[in-house]
Amino acid sequence: MSKATIKQVAAEAEVSTATVSRVLNDSGYVSAEVKERVFGAIAKLNYQPSAIARSLKQDKTFMIGVIVPDISNPYFMGISRGIEDVVGPEGFQLMFCSSDEAPEKEARLLQLLHEKRVDAIVLATSGGNVANINSLRDNGQRMVLIDRRLEEEAGTNETGLPALDLVAEDNVQSAYELTKALLDDGHVRIGAVNGPTRVSTGRERLEGVLRAMKERGVEDRLLLYSGDFSAEGGIRAVRQFLNEEEKPTAIVSLNNQMSLGVLLELVGSGLRIPGDMAVASFGEVEAGRLLKEPGLYYVDQDPYEMGLQAGDLLLRLIRGENEAHSPSSKIFHHEVKRIHS
Amino acid sequence: MSKATIKQVAAEAEVSTATVSRVLNDSGYVSAEVKERVFGAIAKLNYQPSAIARSLKQDKTFMIGVIVPDISNPYFMGISRGIEDVVGPEGFQLMFCSSDEAPEKEARLLQLLHEKRVDAIVLATSGGNVANINSLRDNGQRMVLIDRRLEEEAGTNETGLPALDLVAEDNVQSAYELTKALLDDGHVRIGAVNGPTRVSTGRERLEGVLRAMKERGVEDRLLLYSGDFSAEGGIRAVRQFLNEEEKPTAIVSLNNQMSLGVLLELVGSGLRIPGDMAVASFGEVEAGRLLKEPGLYYVDQDPYEMGLQAGDLLLRLIRGENEAHSPSSKIFHHEVKRIHS
Repeated sequence: MSKATIKQVAAEAEVSTATVSRVLNDSGYVSAEVKERVFGAIAKLNYQPSAIARSLKQDKTFMIGVIVPDISNPYFMGISRGIEDVVGPEGFQLMFCSSDEAPEKEARLLQLLHEKRVDAIVLATSGGNVANINSLRDNGQRMVLIDRRLEEEAGTNETGLPALDLVAEDNVQSAYELTKALLDDGHVRIGAVNGPTRVSTGRERLEGVLRAMKERGVEDRLLLYSGDFSAEGGIRAVRQFLNEEEKPTAIVSLNNQMSLGVLLELVGSGLRIPGDMAVASFGEVEAGRLLKEPGLYYVDQDPYEMGLQAGDLLLRLIRGENEAHSPSSKIFHHEVKRIHS
Repeated sequence: MSKATIKQVAAEAEVSTATVSRVLNDSGYVSAEVKERVFGAIAKLNYQPSAIARSLKQDKTFMIGVIVPDISNPYFMGISRGIEDVVGPEGFQLMFCSSDEAPEKEARLLQLLHEKRVDAIVLATSGGNVANINSLRDNGQRMVLIDRRLEEEAGTNETGLPALDLVAEDNVQSAYELTKALLDDGHVRIGAVNGPTRVSTGRERLEGVLRAMKERGVEDRLLLYSGDFSAEGGIRAVRQFLNEEEKPTAIVSLNNQMSLGVLLELVGSGLRIPGDMAVASFGEVEAGRLLKEPGLYYVDQDPYEMGLQAGDLLLRLIRGENEAHSPSSKIFHHEVKRIHS
């Protein structure tokens, strides 16, 4: 098969070569329908518009790399959907990588995406990479942090402000309110399932739980299990709690995946929720609606909306509209709700 | 920050430059611990080992692109985990893209990954791209199909065998057995929630349902809803079935995401499962274990094992070990099981 030319692509798509060029360079208005035809012709003829030359000329690769700790967590996929709905119409494609909560894997992925000259990296950090992240930033790599802050204030620029855009949640306050809901129902012996304190969501949510317990003067009644933000962690936490001499009467689980594990293990042990064990979850678990009885407390996260905000920040960053501004921190406050029958 | 040299990387990692080179070229034995140190040093110093030169020399980019129709479906993430556990130790990184069941988006992603010269593409096709796929294959792009066959026999080579490796399920047989389980329990008025027949899993699973219904001579009692493999599709199907004059007494739902929607909507409507409505699901829904009563039928898929097989095929393909062989089709048969209390 000989190399296809731009003329052949234009003929195949039944448009002018100028239109093909506009589509390739993302310049000027081209209708979605014509774009589809041009991309179809490019794919059919396997036209190679010299991707590297094009990206050098434009200094754009139209790829955005997204590194998340757990690609199977619906929360991160909700954020990604929001990002894609903003940047997709502008011609950017998202590529997802999973760091599996492993700082070393995250380091390799950051390096790989930077080498591939992605236009921006969206990062929910697994921790341990402040130096790497600052070094990439100093080398001009555009980055937006989602869900998790950098763990050290090294992540500040000369003005003292955070050097990277951030879209995250008010974790301390929501975890405080979540725990308070259980305390207000009369529970004091509470088991908390926490994520790794290496990452900000783990640290901040635990801080919120402790604040509520201390306010009531019952912090010595708290049982703590260090999970890893996975369903398996929630399962193991329940097993440990049920082996305690003085079992808890309520469990606060500090992310959605661990909460699914908590629910599965409690139901599997024949316990009623909340009759035998009250449960409060940081993040909604869709499956919670299948429980026999209503009453599950949850922080009503809105990852899609967070993704839309992150998408806006990305576009501003890539267009250079942000240069004169300080990096922004968008912190969402999500309320505690309860599943009713 | 001036450019780091390989010597500086070696000094930082406390190894020889030869070791750094071995790690970069993935040649010769280097312990995992030393590799970690070298990658850490590379990241810290932001060393740019001339990624492009390196990949040209090796004709490898160490990237494998994975295109799936729904990145939030745990089934596809299970397959991906299996693939990663095989190819990761060999130095390959997976990059995930979601086609959202949209053939045009899939066409763009195929082209993008090919331009980025990924070492291989793993594809669960959304359909409509046989010509594009054959064209990429003819241009030397390595590809492995997962879960879904190409819809046309155009995907064959000169020997008449399928031209691409495939790891999939015996959809007809499992859907047949799933429907038969409901028929054996005395149900004849059955609502089937199907995926798009544009893709092989949609076509084949429907075929299995029809075969079981015909065998009993009750195919005229079948209610059919065309879903889109999403939870929302399952919700809409239940609403339609419950509006029928003669409502079904059982529902067979032909993928896990639609089944979650079916369960949520039935429980939300106050119906008991299986007391008021029996449910059979192609694929396990973890949340099904939270139901009040046991009795949910499901096809016990093993996506992780399928991923391990796909990973093996990928490595053989990348190493060129497959050239003398015909492409292989690994078809898994997954049994029907029932959730017991």
